[in-house]
Amino acid sequence: MAVFRLSNIMTEIRTIEAKNHIGEAVQLKGWLHNVRRLGGVNFIVLRDGWGTIQAVTEDDADLAPIADLALGTVIRLEGLAIANAQAPNGLELQRPRIEVITPVTETPPLPLNKRRLNAALPTLLDHAVVANRHPARRAIFRLSSGVMAGFRATLGAMYFTEVQTPKIVASATESGANVFRLDYFGRPAYLAQSPQFYKQIMVGVFERVFEVGPVFRAEPHDTVRHINEYVSLDVEFGFIENHFTVMRLLREVIAGIFTYLIDNYPDDLALLEANLPIILPEIPHIHFADAQELILSRHGVDVRGEPDLSPQDERWLGEWALETHGSDFLFVTGYPMVKRPFYTHPDPTRPDYSNSFDLLFRGTELVTGGQRLHRYQDYLAALDRAGYPHEPFETYLEAFRYGMPPHGGFAIGLERLLMQLLGLPNLRLATLFPRDLHRVTP
Amino acid sequence: MAVFRLSNIMTEIRTIEAKNHIGEAVQLKGWLHNVRRLGGVNFIVLRDGWGTIQAVTEDDADLAPIADLALGTVIRLEGLAIANAQAPNGLELQRPRIEVITPVTETPPLPLNKRRLNAALPTLLDHAVVANRHPARRAIFRLSSGVMAGFRATLGAMYFTEVQTPKIVASATESGANVFRLDYFGRPAYLAQSPQFYKQIMVGVFERVFEVGPVFRAEPHDTVRHINEYVSLDVEFGFIENHFTVMRLLREVIAGIFTYLIDNYPDDLALLEANLPIILPEIPHIHFADAQELILSRHGVDVRGEPDLSPQDERWLGEWALETHGSDFLFVTGYPMVKRPFYTHPDPTRPDYSNSFDLLFRGTELVTGGQRLHRYQDYLAALDRAGYPHEPFETYLEAFRYGMPPHGGFAIGLERLLMQLLGLPNLRLATLFPRDLHRVTP
Repeated sequence: MAVFRLSNIMTEIRTIEAKNHIGEAVQLKGWLHNVRRLGGVNFIVLRDGWGTIQAVTEDDADLAPIADLALGTVIRLEGLAIANAQAPNGLELQRPRIEVITPVTETPPLPLNKRRLNAALPTLLDHAVVANRHPARRAIFRLSSGVMAGFRATLGAMYFTEVQTPKIVASATESGANVFRLDYFGRPAYLAQSPQFYKQIMVGVFERVFEVGPVFRAEPHDTVRHINEYVSLDVEFGFIENHFTVMRLLREVIAGIFTYLIDNYPDDLALLEANLPIILPEIPHIHFADAQELILSRHGVDVRGEPDLSPQDERWLGEWALETHGSDFLFVTGYPMVKRPFYTHPDPTRPDYSNSFDLLFRGTELVTGGQRLHRYQDYLAALDRAGYPHEPFETYLEAFRYGMPPHGGFAIGLERLLMQLLGLPNLRLATLFPRDLHRVTP
Repeated sequence: MAVFRLSNIMTEIRTIEAKNHIGEAVQLKGWLHNVRRLGGVNFIVLRDGWGTIQAVTEDDADLAPIADLALGTVIRLEGLAIANAQAPNGLELQRPRIEVITPVTETPPLPLNKRRLNAALPTLLDHAVVANRHPARRAIFRLSSGVMAGFRATLGAMYFTEVQTPKIVASATESGANVFRLDYFGRPAYLAQSPQFYKQIMVGVFERVFEVGPVFRAEPHDTVRHINEYVSLDVEFGFIENHFTVMRLLREVIAGIFTYLIDNYPDDLALLEANLPIILPEIPHIHFADAQELILSRHGVDVRGEPDLSPQDERWLGEWALETHGSDFLFVTGYPMVKRPFYTHPDPTRPDYSNSFDLLFRGTELVTGGQRLHRYQDYLAALDRAGYPHEPFETYLEAFRYGMPPHGGFAIGLERLLMQLLGLPNLRLATLFPRDLHRVTP
C-alpha cells in the first residue's frame, strides 16, 4: 500500500504500522491521548488518525515538554519500538522524546482518554467536534466509510454506474413527505428528499445505477430513529421480473457490505463489539397480509386492516424471523398501495397490494424498495388517481414516454444500518454531526 | 467479474460481453437505438446500459414486431453472435428475433441515433432526461463516475478516510460567498457552500480525510463555467510542512485519477477524443507576484496590484506553462491574503501573501487549496481582523482549541475537470442535470 510520506529524518510511521518496525527508532505524530504516572514509571499514549501507541519511561524529564499542557496537545514522538506482550497492541516505545507541535492548555470538554466515552447525549452532540476524536466514536465512522466502500465495490462488480444527481429540485411533490424549502434566486425550490426520480431517469441511461449522497427530510419527528439529513445508499436497475428480483440483488448488496467490513475493518468491529448478522442465502420473506395474520396469532393483537406496520409490529416480526428462520433479516412484501408513493407498481394479481418491500434488520426497517411503474400511460393514470397535476412531473415523465424497462430499486439508510449493527440506542450516535428538529450545529 | 443475472432461457448478455460469445445464441435487452434498411438488408441496433450491438437480417418479417413503433422502444433481442470485421465492434447478430418489452410510439425529442448529438444547448438541457441516453453523453458521465472512483482509490491507498459531512448548516459566514437560505423548521439555515469547516474538523479525528459530495453556491454568475450546484472532491490532511506538501499530494491525486481513467475507461476516452494531459513528476509552480510580472513582460499588460487573476490571466499562464515547461498543469502559489478566506495561513516570510495555491489545468482554475491556520489564537485574531463575531464559529473553533496540527487541503471541481479534459464549451455539458441562475429542472 502506497503511503504518502512527508520528508523524514527517521522513519515516520503511523500507529497501525508500528508492528512492522519492532527494533527500529521511529517517529510518530499525533495527539497526546493520555499520560499516566504509576510508581515511578510514566506512560505516554499518542493517538494519531488510526490508533494509539504507548511510550514508557522512568525518567520524569522526558515529560518536561508537556508538563504544563493539556491532553490533546499535538506532538511529535520519537522512540525505539520494542515488542512487549503486556503493552496495548503488543508493543511500546522506549526512550521517548516528545516535541510539541501545537500546545493545548485547556482540558477537553469530554474525557477522550477513557475507554468508554461516558457523556450525556446532549453533551456528546454539543461537543461532537471533540467527541468524534474518541477511539470508539471514530470506529463507528470508519465503519461508515467501510459500508460506503463495500456498497460501491459490490455494485461496481455487477456493472452498476455511480451517479450524482441534483439535491436542489423544483418540485416538492415526490411522495407527499415534508421537504425543506429554499430561496433559489428569489424563486422557491426544495431539497431532494431522495434521488428517486433521478435514479429512475438514470435507468434509462445506464440501466443499473447507484448513488451515495445526502437526503433531506423535513419530518418533524423527534424520536431516537429519525434525523432530518442522512446518507442514503440508493440503487435502481432495469429489466427486472418484479420486486423479487430487486430483493435478490439487495441480499447480495447486504452480504457484500458485511463481507467488506469483516475483511477490512476487523479491529473496529471488535472494538465496538459488533454483533454480526446472519445473512441466509435467501432472506426469508412474508407478505404484508400474512404478517398481520401472524401478529394476531402470535400476539393476539389484531392489526389487520392497518395500512402500515408499527415499530412494535416490526419488532415482533423480527423476533419471529430469528426464531423461525434463524435470520436477522426479514423481507415484508406487498405493502398496501395506499401507503406507497404513486410510482409504485401494483401487484398484478392483487392490485390493492404493491410489488414493494421493506427489509427489516433486527426488527427495524432498514431498506425500502420495490418495483416501479414503467409504462407512460400507467404514470398518467397514477398521477390522476393521486390527484396530482401532470405539469410538475413533465420532465420525469419524459423518461417513460421515450422508453423505460420494468425496473426497481431500493434505498439503504447508512446511519440506520450502523445503528442496528452496533446496537446503538440513538440514530444520532451513528451520525458525525446530526441534524434534527432542534439541532443544526455543530 | 460477478454479474447479477436474471434467470435466463438462453445466455443473457450485455453488449460489452458479446465479444466473448461469438458463435453462441444470445439474448440482450435494451432500447431500439437505430433501424436502417439498405437495399434489402436491414440493420437493427440495440443500445443497453453499456454500449450498442448491431443485428442484421434480409427478412423484413423480422422487423414486424417494431413496425409501428418509435426508436427508444424497449426490446429483447435474440440472435446468433457472428464475428464480422465490417460490423461495429467486429461482430453482429444474425437471425434476429425481436420481442417488444415496452412500446414507444412517439419519436424522441432528440436524435439519439446520430453519431453526434446536434442540438442547441437549451434543447439539450431541457430534454436532458432523454439526451443523456446518447452514447457520447453517457461516456461523459461514465468518466465522471471514473473520476470519483479514481479519486477514492488513490486516497484510500494513502490511508485517507472518507467522510460525509452535513449539507445543512447554521451559519452563512464561511467565506463571504453567497449561500442559499432555507427554512429549517421555522428558523433560517443554509446550504453548505463547501465542506471546508467540517473537513478541517475531521482532520482532528482521522488526520487524513476526503469527501465526494454536492456543494451549493448562490453566486448569480451566468457564464459558461459556473453552475450553482456541483460535485466537489474535497481533501484535507494534517501534519503538513506548508502548502507545498498539499501540492505534492494533489499531484499524486491528479495522476491517480487519470491513471484510473486510462486503465478503466479507454473506450469512453476514445469516443470523446479526450486529450489526455501531461502530468509532470513535479508540476511547475509560479508565485502570484511573479505570475503578474510574467504577464507584464510577455503580454505588456500590467496586472500588478490586482488581488486576483482574471480568466485571461489564467489562460496566458496556462499557455506559458505548456510552452516553457511542457505542462498542462500549473500551480500559482501565494495569492494575496485579501482575496483568501479568513482561515488561510499567511506566508510567514511575506504575510500579505498566503500559503495557498490554485491549480490551473489548461489555463483554467481547476483546484483551490492551501495551508490553513491551525492555532486557536490565530483563529481568534483572524476573525477579529475580518470583523466577524466569534459566536457563529464557536463549534468550529473547538477543533483548534483542543489541538490541531498544521494542515491543509484542496477541492477539485468534478465537472470542471471533465470540461477541461474533454474540451467542452460549457460546464453544463459535464453535469447530468445542471442548476444555474435560470434552471432548476429537469
